[in-house]
Amino acid sequence: MARDRPRVLILGGGFGGLAAAKALKGAAVDVTLIDRTNHHLFQPLLYQVATAGLAAPSIAAPIRHILRSQRNVTVLMGDVVDIDLATRAVHLADGDTLGYEHLIVATGATHSYFGRDEWASHAPGLKTLADAQGIRARLLDAFERAERSNDPDERAALLRFVVIGGGPTGVEMAGTLAEIARHTLPGEFRGIDPASAEILLLEGGTRVLAAYPEPLSDSAKSQLESLGVRVRLGAKVVGIDAEGVEVESDGARTRLLTRNVVWGAGVEASPLGALLAKASGITPDRAGRVPVQADLSLPGHPEVQVIGDLAALSVEGQPVPGIAPAAKQMGQHAAKNLIAALKARVSTPFRYRDYGSMATIGRHRAIGVIGGMRFTGLLAWWLWLFAHIVFLIGYRNRLVVLMDWASQYWTMQRHARVFSPHSKG
Amino acid sequence: MARDRPRVLILGGGFGGLAAAKALKGAAVDVTLIDRTNHHLFQPLLYQVATAGLAAPSIAAPIRHILRSQRNVTVLMGDVVDIDLATRAVHLADGDTLGYEHLIVATGATHSYFGRDEWASHAPGLKTLADAQGIRARLLDAFERAERSNDPDERAALLRFVVIGGGPTGVEMAGTLAEIARHTLPGEFRGIDPASAEILLLEGGTRVLAAYPEPLSDSAKSQLESLGVRVRLGAKVVGIDAEGVEVESDGARTRLLTRNVVWGAGVEASPLGALLAKASGITPDRAGRVPVQADLSLPGHPEVQVIGDLAALSVEGQPVPGIAPAAKQMGQHAAKNLIAALKARVSTPFRYRDYGSMATIGRHRAIGVIGGMRFTGLLAWWLWLFAHIVFLIGYRNRLVVLMDWASQYWTMQRHARVFSPHSKG
Repeated sequence: MARDRPRVLILGGGFGGLAAAKALKGAAVDVTLIDRTNHHLFQPLLYQVATAGLAAPSIAAPIRHILRSQRNVTVLMGDVVDIDLATRAVHLADGDTLGYEHLIVATGATHSYFGRDEWASHAPGLKTLADAQGIRARLLDAFERAERSNDPDERAALLRFVVIGGGPTGVEMAGTLAEIARHTLPGEFRGIDPASAEILLLEGGTRVLAAYPEPLSDSAKSQLESLGVRVRLGAKVVGIDAEGVEVESDGARTRLLTRNVVWGAGVEASPLGALLAKASGITPDRAGRVPVQADLSLPGHPEVQVIGDLAALSVEGQPVPGIAPAAKQMGQHAAKNLIAALKARVSTPFRYRDYGSMATIGRHRAIGVIGGMRFTGLLAWWLWLFAHIVFLIGYRNRLVVLMDWASQYWTMQRHARVFSPHSKG
Repeated sequence: MARDRPRVLILGGGFGGLAAAKALKGAAVDVTLIDRTNHHLFQPLLYQVATAGLAAPSIAAPIRHILRSQRNVTVLMGDVVDIDLATRAVHLADGDTLGYEHLIVATGATHSYFGRDEWASHAPGLKTLADAQGIRARLLDAFERAERSNDPDERAALLRFVVIGGGPTGVEMAGTLAEIARHTLPGEFRGIDPASAEILLLEGGTRVLAAYPEPLSDSAKSQLESLGVRVRLGAKVVGIDAEGVEVESDGARTRLLTRNVVWGAGVEASPLGALLAKASGITPDRAGRVPVQADLSLPGHPEVQVIGDLAALSVEGQPVPGIAPAAKQMGQHAAKNLIAALKARVSTPFRYRDYGSMATIGRHRAIGVIGGMRFTGLLAWWLWLFAHIVFLIGYRNRLVVLMDWASQYWTMQRHARVFSPHSKG
């Protein structure tokens, strides 16, 4: 490729970064997309890898394979640690430097423990394939250890699962755990009854899935309860250690003895957010996200665009949500503005098109708002299933996921129940 | 279950242990099967997980799920560290003790570095799912790092793959690596040509796949070479470090600079072999295996049977090979002798029924001996494929593996090309 074409650097191969790269197809630029892993991850189904329903490769595809036919794109695997806005260069962990004329930052978010990083090892969060495989191993191992244990207290702690946070991840995890305990595992153990496992969902606020209208939150709560999940609202977690969780509720503190905690309570922007904000003299929002201009550019730096979960932006008074469709739209819009800039045309403000959103709870259980219409239960679940199959990348993955879901539907079995002791990935 | 039924303890859930447990279906015994992992692994296809062709859950199934309907079997996950033949008890790593009246030891083999354990971190072997996923990450990472590198020497070392050992694992790995470099990856990189990768197979002896008749070994060598693998016979590895491999051949030493070494050269019996031999006053063979009686029992201990890769046995002057069908047959025979003992009948000697064996090299390339007939190339490959689908456990796995193979066949793509930096599993 000729080196006199403008160099576009995209950081992150998630929904935003990938959409930007694709939208630059045919543009007279040299695009380099850099990511810490080699794959694009379909994060909406990550909880199914964590709960042994899907194999990791079914929801991930090599970024360079997805973009292979786009000749103006180079894909690199690397860890960006610094961005120098003055010299327009990006520094990687191994010392390499990449220059740019245009930069699109799409490094997303990670879990946040609200400053209590010591909780991380006891209450893993769910953002990467390695996270999901680690959680899978821990959850399955708890049942194995309970089967081996002769101590009733230890057994109870091993069969108590505490999910923290009533957002989509927490709800999906709690619902699926209940299904595993009640429908997948019974009949396979001799010393314990997996169906006696206790699944608790702790939410600090007044309802689960608070981004949805209140009636849908209420429905989600009843749907969870119908699966056997104990939902505790107004339950604030004040401590987590190897033995259990400390909860504050109505001014009283209680301790839940458990060996299984899953963290779905908070996310914060990738550290590059704070770095960009500092370098451009602005203040990141509470979640560490970068307040961007209406055209997605960094204030004072029209050559830098920040998109997806890393960007804080309100359109017509409504904050753009941190979900895959929003990140995709921002990626496409950033590419459009970049092409406009190449032709010395002015950039346009980003408009978010809200096609709706859905959250799943379990078999035949979900909620959704689509085109202003509200759905719950069976119909919402079928819509959720259909949408997730359609948006999954790769024909093979769609087929295998459909097949795995069909088999789970009929047999209640989950085929990815495979782990080794101390397995990390 | 009544505690007055004889307790049978099976150590290991591989082909041998699982076959023994299944053959005890309906017997008036309480069976406990214990394994270090939660899954039975279809080891013959493990190299396909290592080479990103299959996802891990496609070739593994939870042992307790396989045996769920066999009410006289309890499955436990645990790490056996000691066997006390005098008190008839087995000790686990976490301090627990399990007693037995009958013991079947089927803990198999692991890789052996012939006393050079420092080679292990540079030249991983392939025995577990974690091994396979670790090798997958290393191999894919080499291409990623080569794409990033500007140093021609480093690039060459990253694109040189050295497979040590010309047995089935080495041949499968070398052949598949050549296919990945020549057919899967080209077109996806911008700075390197993956097809320029060099794949070397080093064998210390005079031919590859030495367990087969010589004409088939010769055919395997040519088939490897037709894929672009450089096969070096009489090449003895005398050193391995982070930078390369030291080879002795015809009295001369050469050094191969490489960052990618896969170990397929040696296996040795699980450490329980040496332990059992010592406790019963016999000498293990060179590979650490336990010489057993004709009826598979440990000399002097008719209540203990040793089967599969852990047992050393010759039938009619022919050593029983360390392959899956032999382990299965031994497991079934051990169960039969155990049932005979319960009825105070005498045990019978084990007879190995050799139905044939096959080794694959790559697309349309394989060798095989079935019922005394020899096969090479296309026909051998189809036979290999058919046999491996038939013997894979689980309908879902058979279907997914067939589908993945069909898609690989037409597109040359491999769907499990997913890893994270420093991923271990």
